[in-house]
Amino acid sequence: MAVLCRPAVAVPEHVITAEETLELARRVHADHPQLPLVLRLISNTGVRKRHLIRPISETLQHPGFEARNRIYEEHAKQRVPAVVAQALTNSGLRVEDIDLLVYVSCTGFMMPSLTSWLINSMGFRHDTRQLPIAQLGCAAGGAAINRAHDFCTAYPDSNALIIACEFCSLCYQPDDHDIGSLLSNGLFGDAVAAAVVRGAGGSGVLLERNASAIIADTEDWISYQVKDTGFHFRLDKRVPTTMKPLAPALRALVDRHRWDVAGLDFYIVHAGGPRILDDLTKFLGVPPVAFRFSRATLTEYGNIASGVVLDALLRMFDEDSLTARARGLIAGFGPGISAEMAVGSWLPDPQVSFVRPRSESVPSLGGR
Amino acid sequence: MAVLCRPAVAVPEHVITAEETLELARRVHADHPQLPLVLRLISNTGVRKRHLIRPISETLQHPGFEARNRIYEEHAKQRVPAVVAQALTNSGLRVEDIDLLVYVSCTGFMMPSLTSWLINSMGFRHDTRQLPIAQLGCAAGGAAINRAHDFCTAYPDSNALIIACEFCSLCYQPDDHDIGSLLSNGLFGDAVAAAVVRGAGGSGVLLERNASAIIADTEDWISYQVKDTGFHFRLDKRVPTTMKPLAPALRALVDRHRWDVAGLDFYIVHAGGPRILDDLTKFLGVPPVAFRFSRATLTEYGNIASGVVLDALLRMFDEDSLTARARGLIAGFGPGISAEMAVGSWLPDPQVSFVRPRSESVPSLGGR
Repeated sequence: MAVLCRPAVAVPEHVITAEETLELARRVHADHPQLPLVLRLISNTGVRKRHLIRPISETLQHPGFEARNRIYEEHAKQRVPAVVAQALTNSGLRVEDIDLLVYVSCTGFMMPSLTSWLINSMGFRHDTRQLPIAQLGCAAGGAAINRAHDFCTAYPDSNALIIACEFCSLCYQPDDHDIGSLLSNGLFGDAVAAAVVRGAGGSGVLLERNASAIIADTEDWISYQVKDTGFHFRLDKRVPTTMKPLAPALRALVDRHRWDVAGLDFYIVHAGGPRILDDLTKFLGVPPVAFRFSRATLTEYGNIASGVVLDALLRMFDEDSLTARARGLIAGFGPGISAEMAVGSWLPDPQVSFVRPRSESVPSLGGR
Repeated sequence: MAVLCRPAVAVPEHVITAEETLELARRVHADHPQLPLVLRLISNTGVRKRHLIRPISETLQHPGFEARNRIYEEHAKQRVPAVVAQALTNSGLRVEDIDLLVYVSCTGFMMPSLTSWLINSMGFRHDTRQLPIAQLGCAAGGAAINRAHDFCTAYPDSNALIIACEFCSLCYQPDDHDIGSLLSNGLFGDAVAAAVVRGAGGSGVLLERNASAIIADTEDWISYQVKDTGFHFRLDKRVPTTMKPLAPALRALVDRHRWDVAGLDFYIVHAGGPRILDDLTKFLGVPPVAFRFSRATLTEYGNIASGVVLDALLRMFDEDSLTARARGLIAGFGPGISAEMAVGSWLPDPQVSFVRPRSESVPSLGGR
């Protein structure tokens, strides 16, 4: 048994709105021959605001790859521990209960990974396994859940903590003027997210089965060009069409589990952009409202890379509308082009839902 | 059940001998105030020769981080498939039998990882899971074995392929003149290694238990400084002393398995340098000959990072002296400072050892 507990998410304090993004694009790229297209693409994302680790004036500077990695490390050390602590609290576990740290991040590079620092500074056990993943991009949110699920399947008494730390603003490249880059500049945001996968106990999404998929010969559709100036995000214009070949993979996983992909109770998917959600509505045969959590993440935070699925999950936990054994699908999409998918069911907190009525758990009434 | 099958290893065609390394150090660093110390440290490594993907004249150039990553990708695509094919042949499996690709490499950065290209170009199934790990350094050889073991424990009918692709010569930094860098320049080599971990069937090392360990507050002892010029390897002078705190972790794993760490039949450890092997002899109470495979890897190829444990394993397979159920230990060491350890036992090929005497399997005698 592996239960994905309530995530914790933090977004940074510097906010840029859609209007500010468009204004900035108009100003910085006034002479760009395809400016109207760029503005239209950015508007169409539906992103209302994004959160950044630094003020926009600093974000637009490129101080070099070395300085950027230093900023990444500083902010990661500053922002990750509180999110980890909250995820632990949400799961009812303590640092010493964690057996595996899965840390996913494609927007800064450290060796050793932040996992080593977290073990030392937060008091995780010194035999905690470390699984840092830097090369799965936005699919890494799903991959982290799936590898934690695998681990708890192998060792049923174990617990895994997954962390997604994405400071996409540190990959802003002022000299990249292709359409994909300009769109990305208006799409991606920064966030830190974490969640515990418990091998025993806990409440949340009971992970039941997972799978991966890759679309043949699309390696260069989403990729980094690694340069002296760091990671240059390359986004092919065919990327928005990828749900057509990936939807059958989602359907196949759900079929294998003998569930109906069109009839699930929840859908938590990586909201890379609006087209992904629109197309899944069509290809899976489900209403747009099914993707309300992912769409809210996109609208409120932009594409926060591997953090999207965790933030969308948190919104689902917050809505608190699922009943026991409600069935659902979780999927991350990213470079490859690949998908990391899982099916699971809702396992309510027995203390809240069964042991006593919800109102009794309010402290002022004497519950605890 | 998870069986680590016979690895495949390839080293590149360009060879630099110990004498050439020392001569080069004398020439390039003629004015270095600590040249005699550097030469002594390099001599003491016991490395006789190393293999490089390019001639030494090209290796000593720094064409920029971007060009180096391009060279990494070119050579990885050129050199990895044959090693993967050999590892598959060694395991008796085909590409379509593989469920998980674990790709470890800390000497070049690609997103998507090479795993995507391998799936497309070698015909792996499109639902093959991808687990690229870039941030565990030399410990990643052990980590790859352990995560493959975990996966086959979770899904007993599955098979994992692990690949270690390390072109350490692409991390040569001509402007780094600290002692650790100069020693590293004379210590590291290039290699590609691969092995299959079979969930069912196969012969080799039956993986029985694994564990990780980190030494408190040593994150900066082995690390990369990530700069505009790429990865700058930082090696603290205290690193050679790390077997003292890590040996108890090795012992604890073996104790937990109710075996005696001093009485095992084989020891396959990361040979980062000669001191590691000398110290383990002392701290584990085993004779130097126990580390002959790791020492041979160090002598013949230098420190090939995550590839060391796989190459040492191959030497053990080649010696072919183990009897059924022989007990042993595998351990990778790397940044953190961390260890990725496993205990396992020898599972001979039944066709060779039990079904018929060895001579009958020679084709000329009609066996197969």
